[in-house]
Amino acid sequence: MAIKIGKSTIIFNKKPAVAGYGSVVGKKEMEGPLSAEFDSYDTDIRFGEESFEKAESRMQKIAVETALRKCQKSESDIDVIFAGDLLNQCVGSSFGLRGMGIPFAGIYGACSTMTLGLILASICVDCGVADCAAAVTSSHFCSAERQYRYPLEYGSVRPQSAQWTVTGSGASIISCCSDKPYIDKATFGKIVDLGVKDANNMGAAMAPSAASTLVGFFEDTSTGPDDYDGIFTGDLGRVGTDLLYILTEQNGFNIREKHQDCGLIIFDRKSQDVHSGGSGCGCSASVLNSYIFHRFESGAFRNILFMSTGALLSPTSTMQGESIPGITHLVNIKT
Amino acid sequence: MAIKIGKSTIIFNKKPAVAGYGSVVGKKEMEGPLSAEFDSYDTDIRFGEESFEKAESRMQKIAVETALRKCQKSESDIDVIFAGDLLNQCVGSSFGLRGMGIPFAGIYGACSTMTLGLILASICVDCGVADCAAAVTSSHFCSAERQYRYPLEYGSVRPQSAQWTVTGSGASIISCCSDKPYIDKATFGKIVDLGVKDANNMGAAMAPSAASTLVGFFEDTSTGPDDYDGIFTGDLGRVGTDLLYILTEQNGFNIREKHQDCGLIIFDRKSQDVHSGGSGCGCSASVLNSYIFHRFESGAFRNILFMSTGALLSPTSTMQGESIPGITHLVNIKT
Repeated sequence: MAIKIGKSTIIFNKKPAVAGYGSVVGKKEMEGPLSAEFDSYDTDIRFGEESFEKAESRMQKIAVETALRKCQKSESDIDVIFAGDLLNQCVGSSFGLRGMGIPFAGIYGACSTMTLGLILASICVDCGVADCAAAVTSSHFCSAERQYRYPLEYGSVRPQSAQWTVTGSGASIISCCSDKPYIDKATFGKIVDLGVKDANNMGAAMAPSAASTLVGFFEDTSTGPDDYDGIFTGDLGRVGTDLLYILTEQNGFNIREKHQDCGLIIFDRKSQDVHSGGSGCGCSASVLNSYIFHRFESGAFRNILFMSTGALLSPTSTMQGESIPGITHLVNIKT
Repeated sequence: MAIKIGKSTIIFNKKPAVAGYGSVVGKKEMEGPLSAEFDSYDTDIRFGEESFEKAESRMQKIAVETALRKCQKSESDIDVIFAGDLLNQCVGSSFGLRGMGIPFAGIYGACSTMTLGLILASICVDCGVADCAAAVTSSHFCSAERQYRYPLEYGSVRPQSAQWTVTGSGASIISCCSDKPYIDKATFGKIVDLGVKDANNMGAAMAPSAASTLVGFFEDTSTGPDDYDGIFTGDLGRVGTDLLYILTEQNGFNIREKHQDCGLIIFDRKSQDVHSGGSGCGCSASVLNSYIFHRFESGAFRNILFMSTGALLSPTSTMQGESIPGITHLVNIKT
């Protein structure tokens, strides 16, 4: 049985573990610094499908199938899958997974979705609702651009604070198994909105929520940056990361030595023209389910914090003059 | 600790109960048969806000505040709230709840959202992750029409199989308390897609998933329609309800005497011009958190099944020629 400590930290009891994981990315991500980490990729931006949206669904299916294969499980072993994405009505997930026959719980956390799914899957396994649960999410540069910004054909110029949506997907299979990294603690984030209205500066909109969740977790657990091998955020990019450092230091925590942002390590900003860094649900999902879990396998990591960061806006809310609410969920992964 | 029985049924152990509930609807809903049941309404379709979308956010806030007030709890008592809606990127929820400071888990189940939220809130309370959790969702006729169909000003004619999106919201507060109706069992639905492509006939698209979840639950629990005081679906409407009867009868279960569809009881189809009935996340949410829970209070209900039904399409998927995946989650509520 899980318990709650402090204001909002969950401690799991049965060590819900990452039995299997899988990642798939697009061509640009394979040209980046993490190319050796991903399970698979496709040079075709449509992944053999007719549309960008169907390509995104295809990636989710590939990620789940890869994760299942790695832990010798089948679709029928999964008691519930938590899935969501950035597309309107989360159709990346519903169309990607509809043929698998797995009980399906749709989630929406914008780019915080991977961590939200991990928390919910861990809760279900920890409390016996599921023997095996899964979490998956995705994003696609082309489907995101046309939905959130402009048709690609416009060739619109973006400011340097803008980020590049990762084409990729990651899936984790959660069950109790003693020899794998496990989710030890978790925090559901609160919505934090400090009034940032620039949809081309999502890092700034999300950084306050990341600081809020991280500082709250440190306080609940009486720990600090030195207690962890790494602290990962999802997709704050360069602008948001610098803001996170300022905000955490205002609360007495210097995380610079331990922190990495998935959006900053998935691309080479000097050569890949991604401006402030990578973003999208698929950014933290593909980095977690490759680079990060590989380092648990090698022993380089034994105790990390993983926090996907989400901006809960829509094109409609932006057009109506609204600011951008941010949210950051957190899991503490150990081995 | 919860346990799993049969193929996909969860039995809770600690009786996660509906400590408080609240509903709010629009003018048309107040003119319908359930007018005496709802907590509040507004004759202004914008609820005093500047846009239909902000009106929807406003309704979610009102529903949660009403539910909290009824059980003498405050926002700070809620450890996590599960919220989602039909708007792109679920902004009805994120903007409605952003000022409340409650840990926020976004969900997306289209019109199945109320039941999905209830299941997840019940899991969190049952397993000790939360002392108190909440679930809320909403829909708004005008925001849904312009997002899914046509601007209202077009005055487009709809076929008789189309449904009328309910303007309304419902919220439930879940915690352990002995004198309230509680969630005894639950089932996460699977995505079922039999190839229906008509976005003006969502009832037909969702009915197969409702039949799948209900028949699966009967089999897992060795029960049948006669064991319950009522079996509620979310928004199948007239067309979907008739299909559900056929599909369940093919599996040996006649539910006609026990079944009611929230979309058929919230409006008077003869006088209110809603064609096949009500729909939207707010349909089952507002009926559950008024009419149904009132009947638990009066003793008329002691054991019911509540199943919100969702159609996991988007305007983009429809334009790309896709069929409509359906999903139905189920809770067994007892007293």
